[in-house]
Amino acid sequence: MAGSVPADRIDSLAAVLGAIRTHRGMTQPLLTQRVGLGRSVVAARVVELETAGLVVNAGMAPSTGGRQPRQLRLRAEAGVVAGISIGATGMEIGLADLSGQVIAHVAEQIDVADGPEAVLGRVEVLVDAQLCEYAADQEVWGLGVGVPGPVEFASGLPVAPPIMPGWDGYPIRERFSRRWSAPTWVDNDVNLLALGELRTNPGAADAQDLLYVKIGTGIGAGLVSGGRLHRGSNGCAGDIGHVAVAEAENVICRCGNAGCLEAVAGGAALAREGRRLAETGASLVMADILASTGRLTAADVTVAADRGDAAARALLARTGRLVGTTLATLVSFYNPALVVLGGGVVNAGDHVLAAIRESVYRRSLPLATRTLRSEPASGGEAASLAGAVHLVLDELFEPRRLARWLPSGSPAGRPELAAGEAAGSAT
Amino acid sequence: MAGSVPADRIDSLAAVLGAIRTHRGMTQPLLTQRVGLGRSVVAARVVELETAGLVVNAGMAPSTGGRQPRQLRLRAEAGVVAGISIGATGMEIGLADLSGQVIAHVAEQIDVADGPEAVLGRVEVLVDAQLCEYAADQEVWGLGVGVPGPVEFASGLPVAPPIMPGWDGYPIRERFSRRWSAPTWVDNDVNLLALGELRTNPGAADAQDLLYVKIGTGIGAGLVSGGRLHRGSNGCAGDIGHVAVAEAENVICRCGNAGCLEAVAGGAALAREGRRLAETGASLVMADILASTGRLTAADVTVAADRGDAAARALLARTGRLVGTTLATLVSFYNPALVVLGGGVVNAGDHVLAAIRESVYRRSLPLATRTLRSEPASGGEAASLAGAVHLVLDELFEPRRLARWLPSGSPAGRPELAAGEAAGSAT
Repeated sequence: MAGSVPADRIDSLAAVLGAIRTHRGMTQPLLTQRVGLGRSVVAARVVELETAGLVVNAGMAPSTGGRQPRQLRLRAEAGVVAGISIGATGMEIGLADLSGQVIAHVAEQIDVADGPEAVLGRVEVLVDAQLCEYAADQEVWGLGVGVPGPVEFASGLPVAPPIMPGWDGYPIRERFSRRWSAPTWVDNDVNLLALGELRTNPGAADAQDLLYVKIGTGIGAGLVSGGRLHRGSNGCAGDIGHVAVAEAENVICRCGNAGCLEAVAGGAALAREGRRLAETGASLVMADILASTGRLTAADVTVAADRGDAAARALLARTGRLVGTTLATLVSFYNPALVVLGGGVVNAGDHVLAAIRESVYRRSLPLATRTLRSEPASGGEAASLAGAVHLVLDELFEPRRLARWLPSGSPAGRPELAAGEAAGSAT
Repeated sequence: MAGSVPADRIDSLAAVLGAIRTHRGMTQPLLTQRVGLGRSVVAARVVELETAGLVVNAGMAPSTGGRQPRQLRLRAEAGVVAGISIGATGMEIGLADLSGQVIAHVAEQIDVADGPEAVLGRVEVLVDAQLCEYAADQEVWGLGVGVPGPVEFASGLPVAPPIMPGWDGYPIRERFSRRWSAPTWVDNDVNLLALGELRTNPGAADAQDLLYVKIGTGIGAGLVSGGRLHRGSNGCAGDIGHVAVAEAENVICRCGNAGCLEAVAGGAALAREGRRLAETGASLVMADILASTGRLTAADVTVAADRGDAAARALLARTGRLVGTTLATLVSFYNPALVVLGGGVVNAGDHVLAAIRESVYRRSLPLATRTLRSEPASGGEAASLAGAVHLVLDELFEPRRLARWLPSGSPAGRPELAAGEAAGSAT
């Protein structure tokens, strides 16, 4: 909660800063129009942001009759934020400036099942190395962490994540916020993918309601409602891998239930069916692959389909149909403007995507598909890192937080941690 | 967009007014804590709101050491708003004060298929009669209208509503905002039911993510995300009557598709199956009802179940199971804190509700049901009217709008219409 008089001022500061940081070439006349504040208020706020070292000159804009107005930009180099995207079998770590531009990033294979001590210890080594090499004279303003399981966002704690043994309730936020004395936010990886697409894919910029569906080893979704993440009451919104589908009635899922979508349409199901087709001789191409490599992965099914193998193509089309049927229900229910399809399945291209689209357009409410767009994820692996970075920036520049670290009149350093923040309550 | 300097002031005015209108017994010290503004700013805003006639004294609060602080309340009697809830076969019309308290209401049978001229003409007669009797010396500050079909909220136009012939694109907002020179908002009736529960059911007050499922002739849902309605990209979010269910594969729905949920679990399906059970002699109780009245309605199935008829009970349980299986997918996907079950089905009580709950808890992700509550709608018919009223109040007291009708220093009359508002662009 902000202190005394500044709260009024902070709302307008946040509005002015928000417009400058999300639009290129902002000028004071444009700000007056966009944020609905008077010219004198805008001018005062710009001076304050310049004094704080957060906004600088970016050249002159073309004149529209009178004097040429100055263009303003966020001083993105004022600080760095770290994004950490932890997946089931790999992680991506990067630094970004305050505009979200990634300065450096590194990817590494890991096994999330090795537990938090091993994985987070390695994260700390890599972040420190990046800071040393690329931001030696800068401080970390905040960290964003994505993990492949449900997270209670308010506390930053993983909640019973099925593929992350040892992580249930592990205080990731507390560890990192102490380590770097900087506020830390933790979220589910698919939420960060959705946020990354929303903020970095130009085609998603005007999609206030977006659905990101990741089909990989697991199947999950990230929901954006009115331009912000819908995380749900327990932070597990979008967890659609284990919804019931009729086609899976007799298949037991790794979760112990029968009938789960993931058990028939996830990456493991694809590999298992591919292997069955190879072993029964239904697919000669996949039989070849199995014989030469000794194993058959979900990616191999795509390889076979690309070589024209009919059985592999039919298998991928069936996967698309299964996902598409569930997705059709979700599109009718949620009415998104854009469905982004990500995860390993994107590599299978139209073998899967065409069947997904066909099911969605056939089975959703006509009104819900009238203007619906569906696209493969543009960001790939980078989207998750971008999501982690933008999670931090959105939280840092949120008005209430801004009030805490932008004291009246004085130049801004790195935001201060509030009491209790290092102990896991950054919101 | 607001004019010059006031925008800053308007944000704090809106915050102070918002806290006063949503909390009983607000005092200036409590406001300082709650809205995070300084004492002097709060005091100045309270004076402005009193000058504008929107806030008045409501007695003294107990002292907490020093001087007793004044309690403040919204001057709810400063104006009236009209709520108009139009259903397929009936409508409810009422007046409320600015706190949302309903002053007068009337219900009437109608057939929405008679078209907008007939139905809205009758609405106008009834609203005028109420205004004349209960608010002769007051002006209408705004109107909220609910209709049983999808609405593009930004324009207030019904969009291809399946059970409302003649209403597609009909300018309801334009007609009413001209008629009463007051801003008008139009929304889908199930959205208004969800909003009504959110604002008037004490058990829903802290549910930021809520799902209202109405099972009547049609089946539809209203979604609340983070305390506000999620309407979707085309205004048709929640339209789940026509999602595919395996059990309906061979049943043709009134929409022309096969496999729709509504075709096997809606009110018409219940009546149809009940009649079949009566005619084949599988249910003697329903056969009696059919023989004595010449027809068999969905409500009759509940009557038979209440009399202990096994076939009727099994039919209602099946309906619950069908709805529950789809709802389980939506609960996993959306992770609401509260599911409210409304529509005619609520009258069947546990014959249906127990089966819905059992399916949801058995088939949703365990984490999504860990703290999930599911309850029959508390508001009944009144919730829809309450939703229409609160839709208007939320929009009227929204900061940007407040800026337009609360001019600096002068006492507030009814909010002025902005240019173009009467022509259907009130947002």
